[in-house]
Amino acid sequence: MRLTALKPFARYLPILDWGSRYNKDTLTNDVVAAVIVTIMLIPQSLAYALLAGLPAEMGLYASILPLVAYAVFGTSRALAVGPVAVVSLMTAAAVGNLALQGTAEYAAAAIVLAFLSGLVLLVMGVFRLGFLANFLSHPVIAGFITASGIIIATSQLKHILGIKASGHNLTELLHSIFAHLGEVNFWTLFIGVTATAFLFWVRKGLKPLLLKKGVKPRLADILAKAGPVAAVVVTTLFTWALGLADKGVAIVGEVPQGLPPLTIPDFDMDVWSSLLGSAGLISIIGFVESVSVAQTLAAKKRQRITPDQELIGLGASNIAASISGGYPVTGGFARSVVNFDAGAETPAAGAFTAIGIALAALALTPLLFFLPKATLAATIIVAVLSLVDFSILKTTWTYNKADFAAVAATILLTLGFGVELGVSAGVALSIGLYLFRSSRPHIAEVGLVPGTEHFRNINRHKVETHPEILTIRVDESLYFANARYLEDYLYDRVVRDRDLKHVILMCSAVNDIDTSALESLEAIDHRFRDMGLKLHLSEVKGPVMDKLSRTHFLHELTGKVFLSQYEAVRDLSGGADRAGKPA
Amino acid sequence: MRLTALKPFARYLPILDWGSRYNKDTLTNDVVAAVIVTIMLIPQSLAYALLAGLPAEMGLYASILPLVAYAVFGTSRALAVGPVAVVSLMTAAAVGNLALQGTAEYAAAAIVLAFLSGLVLLVMGVFRLGFLANFLSHPVIAGFITASGIIIATSQLKHILGIKASGHNLTELLHSIFAHLGEVNFWTLFIGVTATAFLFWVRKGLKPLLLKKGVKPRLADILAKAGPVAAVVVTTLFTWALGLADKGVAIVGEVPQGLPPLTIPDFDMDVWSSLLGSAGLISIIGFVESVSVAQTLAAKKRQRITPDQELIGLGASNIAASISGGYPVTGGFARSVVNFDAGAETPAAGAFTAIGIALAALALTPLLFFLPKATLAATIIVAVLSLVDFSILKTTWTYNKADFAAVAATILLTLGFGVELGVSAGVALSIGLYLFRSSRPHIAEVGLVPGTEHFRNINRHKVETHPEILTIRVDESLYFANARYLEDYLYDRVVRDRDLKHVILMCSAVNDIDTSALESLEAIDHRFRDMGLKLHLSEVKGPVMDKLSRTHFLHELTGKVFLSQYEAVRDLSGGADRAGKPA
Repeated sequence: MRLTALKPFARYLPILDWGSRYNKDTLTNDVVAAVIVTIMLIPQSLAYALLAGLPAEMGLYASILPLVAYAVFGTSRALAVGPVAVVSLMTAAAVGNLALQGTAEYAAAAIVLAFLSGLVLLVMGVFRLGFLANFLSHPVIAGFITASGIIIATSQLKHILGIKASGHNLTELLHSIFAHLGEVNFWTLFIGVTATAFLFWVRKGLKPLLLKKGVKPRLADILAKAGPVAAVVVTTLFTWALGLADKGVAIVGEVPQGLPPLTIPDFDMDVWSSLLGSAGLISIIGFVESVSVAQTLAAKKRQRITPDQELIGLGASNIAASISGGYPVTGGFARSVVNFDAGAETPAAGAFTAIGIALAALALTPLLFFLPKATLAATIIVAVLSLVDFSILKTTWTYNKADFAAVAATILLTLGFGVELGVSAGVALSIGLYLFRSSRPHIAEVGLVPGTEHFRNINRHKVETHPEILTIRVDESLYFANARYLEDYLYDRVVRDRDLKHVILMCSAVNDIDTSALESLEAIDHRFRDMGLKLHLSEVKGPVMDKLSRTHFLHELTGKVFLSQYEAVRDLSGGADRAGKPA
Repeated sequence: MRLTALKPFARYLPILDWGSRYNKDTLTNDVVAAVIVTIMLIPQSLAYALLAGLPAEMGLYASILPLVAYAVFGTSRALAVGPVAVVSLMTAAAVGNLALQGTAEYAAAAIVLAFLSGLVLLVMGVFRLGFLANFLSHPVIAGFITASGIIIATSQLKHILGIKASGHNLTELLHSIFAHLGEVNFWTLFIGVTATAFLFWVRKGLKPLLLKKGVKPRLADILAKAGPVAAVVVTTLFTWALGLADKGVAIVGEVPQGLPPLTIPDFDMDVWSSLLGSAGLISIIGFVESVSVAQTLAAKKRQRITPDQELIGLGASNIAASISGGYPVTGGFARSVVNFDAGAETPAAGAFTAIGIALAALALTPLLFFLPKATLAATIIVAVLSLVDFSILKTTWTYNKADFAAVAATILLTLGFGVELGVSAGVALSIGLYLFRSSRPHIAEVGLVPGTEHFRNINRHKVETHPEILTIRVDESLYFANARYLEDYLYDRVVRDRDLKHVILMCSAVNDIDTSALESLEAIDHRFRDMGLKLHLSEVKGPVMDKLSRTHFLHELTGKVFLSQYEAVRDLSGGADRAGKPA
């Protein structure tokens, strides 16, 4: 193969791997999937551009080169990249702080945002910082997506009603909608409500109906996915035929015909610095969303994706978006599932989709002139309402109150103050609560389960203890945030107990002891020495023991270090007869 | 006692506790300690005011009412509150951002800063947020104090040299000093160097000398502490006698005679919001410093302090400082040790010290007119250089590289960019590194230590394993940041191993499983089911088991939950004969 010379680059160019095995069967499958995804993507890309406050064509542009870039650099066989709802909303929020919707500055800022997002993703990929995304907990993501879905659906109500309204959070939006409620346009409302109802019916009722009528499942699926296209065609014809544009129905209007322009992101330090934070958030959210759908789909075929390479793939896509008049993109959930179900076998399916969208940009844009914005709003509303799911509140409430607090804060703050504050607060709260819990670890007094070598909590199990021996098990690594807590706990515990001679710290759950905690252990040991007590350690893990043996602590320790807690108690209680029994 | 009616308030008013047992002996001890501390505090309070860029009298004012407030609300029997070096430096950094030194706005901002610090401390005390201070790790504090000491000493060089120089970090200071090096004033340099040399000698050489000459230890101690007062008296007389003020020696000049004025902190939203962050930092740093010395001293007499009440005590002190023309105060290290050694038995010693300082403010201020600033600078330099200690770098380097990184960053950033950035970065880095480590937990494959019931790392111990059973011990709680890491580890591990039938997750070190980790465990279990594997859990801790049993996870689990790892392997390996042996 000519490609073998390129093998060393295969880590950064997954295309070399699947490309070398590409054949006619794969091609057929990829093309079929591409046709279906193209049909789905045309109305979506227009609609999401509208959601981002951008001209409709920017949605199309964001669905051409970025898909090609992902096909070259991405590792998922099924991920369909392009404009998505949540990222479009975040784009509107970020860019809306800088410029007025509809201005050239607004569009230029969106292009810069795509460039910065691409840069952030590439840097994360090259430095293998994909793990950072792990700090977005599942509940926070779930809460964020739900709240975003509500904001997005609400933000589209203005198009359904045919009024002007704006805002980046629920309060602002509702307030603005109520203020303009007197200006509702009847024809717009008619189109909007009909399209929404039709699309809901297509989503829920069409496929079962078709199946009942004997249509094959695969075809039924495709027909159901074509619902938005049908809505676009019918409402456009309807608006044109009745001349509704003159009756106040907002239409898409002139969409430039042709391929994406070459754009160079403005280099303006002020714009860059004010967008960088938003670009970071968009990158992380987009990456998390994208990787989670890519991983789910890969697992179904026993394939694997490489998260750090996904960062490079998505980074390249966003850079591609920024140089071809697009705006931030990522892997879309619904679209990728469709791509997968339609049989896409390699990332080439994405490249073929790009060709489809390019053809649409070349040929179909004049036909979009009379497309009512209400129809696009309807497709958005129907798509995002499927993301809204409050069950995470119930799940976390029963399972883990800290997670509940994080998800509730994320939802409330996203709804009340917008996406950026909402998700940042959710992440900060998750981390804060984790730190808080680890700073007040669970500490158990343990005793021997009779007839075994196991030591368990004296409050939960019937166990044997010795009056002169106290064994404390700390269920957390010892580090700066909890070192003082342990000191206080031990001092409080031992002053109550006059018979005590030995205190054993059972370290089976201690995975690390940092410098602060080591200093605390030294302080405890000194204090115990003054009180005539001995401090012993048991079940110290290998890596922890390695570190401790590099210090003076073990030499100066009043007591000993035992491999097992059982040995410790046997030794300290002087129970030679018990010890005689083989374990 | 008349005081019994007040008992319910004893938690917030520790004075009710020790006050009811106060007698003549305690009084004598407290008064003796107060005299010694007063002698030490007069030059210190003037010097630290100078360091903070404030008029000398504000140092005295900060040493009167705040001490009385602490005596009423504080819990430490020995803590000596007042202006301290590090907090004075932080005050200069915070206030210097807002106003020019020497202006009325500068002094007013320092008063507001004291008020805000007091407020922050009170709020933390009432809501029992003292644990927040635990997030300042010992190494970060040690590095911060060392770097601050260097900055403080360098900042005082200008007074020793008699030149003008300014800056909040080492680079700025050195640059500024070199730029003005041509303007050195000979007489100032003479006084400064002599005073510094004298004070170093007093600190190191005077006490041994006096002891050798037969002076009693207690008296020798007091004489050694009086060194700064001697330096003040001698250099003031010298400057007055030779008329050095006219020869360019900077003197303290007119210090208003009288008790502190009543001041009301300006309420200016802009000033408040720009000082609030600094006030938070000053509060936490001051609290940590203060509590650590108070705890050390309390432990020596088997007493205890209450950290949350200390917050209230220090908060009250700072409010008192702000309404009496002072600036932020906290418990001083050296001063408290002197107070303790001098025999202070109750916080009343602080109140008596306040009387001493008040008398000084009433009577002695005219005598301070010719006091050279170089003498005050010398007392500061000698005091702070004892805080400089780089040994923490060596300790952490050998023991814990993460702590080393945090302390090195704290020192470098404090020196290079000033106190606020330095300590914030140190805290952020400590927390970040802790999170990073916990997001990539140590995972060990374990086997049975022959002849025991213990399971240990197969790479460190000679252990028995079964080809169809894999046991993985995760040495960390499972939470959002490491859930995905565990998933990846397990998938990678099991695909390599065709004989495998059972995977046991040994949870002896798992102290919590949050919602994200639970979802990951469910995903692992589903994936294993598809692969014909069973997932088992062993040694699940009580609290974790309680939480899991509130979910469907345990019902749907492919495998079982075993109380002990030994049982798990016995059961799954079908080793009935082994199992027959009693443990």
